[in-house]
Amino acid sequence: MAAYLHRHRVRYREADPMGIVYHSHCLDWFEAARTEALRISGFSYAELERNGTSMPVVDLAVRYHRAVRYDDLLEITVSWGDEPPVTRIRFEYEVRREDEPDLLVSGHVTLCFLDRETGKPVRAPDALRAALGRIPERD
Amino acid sequence: MAAYLHRHRVRYREADPMGIVYHSHCLDWFEAARTEALRISGFSYAELERNGTSMPVVDLAVRYHRAVRYDDLLEITVSWGDEPPVTRIRFEYEVRREDEPDLLVSGHVTLCFLDRETGKPVRAPDALRAALGRIPERD
Amino acid sequence: MAAYLHRHRVRYREADPMGIVYHSHCLDWFEAARTEALRISGFSYAELERNGTSMPVVDLAVRYHRAVRYDDLLEITVSWGDEPPVTRIRFEYEVRREDEPDLLVSGHVTLCFLDRETGKPVRAPDALRAALGRIPERD
Amino acid sequence: MAAYLHRHRVRYREADPMGIVYHSHCLDWFEAARTEALRISGFSYAELERNGTSMPVVDLAVRYHRAVRYDDLLEITVSWGDEPPVTRIRFEYEVRREDEPDLLVSGHVTLCFLDRETGKPVRAPDALRAALGRIPERD
Repeated sequence: MAAYLHRHRVRYREADPMGIVYHSHCLDWFEAARTEALRISGFSYAELERNGTSMPVVDLAVRYHRAVRYDDLLEITVSWGDEPPVTRIRFEYEVRREDEPDLLVSGHVTLCFLDRETGKPVRAPDALRAALGRIPERD
Repeated sequence: MAAYLHRHRVRYREADPMGIVYHSHCLDWFEAARTEALRISGFSYAELERNGTSMPVVDLAVRYHRAVRYDDLLEITVSWGDEPPVTRIRFEYEVRREDEPDLLVSGHVTLCFLDRETGKPVRAPDALRAALGRIPERD
Repeated sequence: MAAYLHRHRVRYREADPMGIVYHSHCLDWFEAARTEALRISGFSYAELERNGTSMPVVDLAVRYHRAVRYDDLLEITVSWGDEPPVTRIRFEYEVRREDEPDLLVSGHVTLCFLDRETGKPVRAPDALRAALGRIPERD
Repeated sequence: MAAYLHRHRVRYREADPMGIVYHSHCLDWFEAARTEALRISGFSYAELERNGTSMPVVDLAVRYHRAVRYDDLLEITVSWGDEPPVTRIRFEYEVRREDEPDLLVSGHVTLCFLDRETGKPVRAPDALRAALGRIPERD
């Protein structure tokens, strides 16, 4: 299993009247983490779209273990299986405060592959399959 | 099982370059649906907080069955079990276009109850337990 | 000058650790207000886009006079000048709590008209010019 | 006049069906830019709040000069006047693509200072006034 670590500083707009992060915002961090994981291996999602493929989300799940607060500096780890994706790809996420062992949030997001013209499912692009094998463990 | 139906018009800011709703926004509709479901039965989440209890999200899951598009008029059904909640409450959601049978999005969000002062778990407030039994099937 | 009144219930995700609305969210209400104002006069922004024109924002300004809080029920008034738009259209906004005279937020948003294919400026569509004259004062 | 440069990669969730950034999101970048500008000079907004002062936004304005697109790498410059703030502070912003001269977005955000307990205006904290003089030109 390969993994990549993305950092995020919690912004004021993400925190709610409880003083903790509103639950939907961790999905934004997950997007940034998987995009940057792919970018450092040479895969550009923007280019994928220009070449006619899009990757909509088909399902996701999130568990909130401990409160995440305004101004926390987070480490979001994104990982994926060793099997190259065929029709779908599932990314797993874990969120911790920098240099702290406690798990704050965990979850997964599954995406599929569509032809942008026809809207029909297609197989995972070769460029993505190649990139997933090239990503180092840390940023 | 009781249920409530909330309407939402998809806004431009919610749609992405694929022309479909970015996946995190359905969590916003879920919040509106459960809040309004409780409101019509006389339960105010704002008042709950003023009285010292908050309801953070502990887990959630969403499945995206079909594309939701800009300007779609949605019906979000929120439902919950017949058992009164004790330490947690789980709301189930289904999203459809108005007057169309196809399921677009489904999911659940589980919340717990915390004392705002101490941050410790508390039991479901009586006012909430009473309200859940009073909500009619339709808005 | 014509005007239209749109209602919005402030959501938890819109409130910040001060307990007040994070400042960027009023732009979402402004979008909903102008879209619904045009809809009731028979003008659909979604259709405008399908017909090849888009309306990006060129400038905006907002003043925050009083705090807007979670669960407030707001009335957003959108208005526009009597002159039919040519290359741009400017909408003015005022936000108040329902049945309260105090102005909470005011502002404007100016949009222009672009050909979606070429990205070049175009004149205001006739359908929009006609619609602006047909909108009643109240929803 | 002192200035600070903050980098931001445009995310998919920020882009709309025109393929360009929805206009409200640049306010998020402005928040990140001013927070990080203050942080490198030793001023923590989170600490300010813990010490009983908050800084709500009182007005803002934004001009959109050119389209900002998904995956653009942006440089957000935040600057402020040489006069130490008394009751308000105004930050000016300019957004460009990395290493490109064209101005994409410009604007300002003005914040004031409130006692969190009483909600009454207070003078700019000394720690903020000191910090503003210490910030270097570049990150």
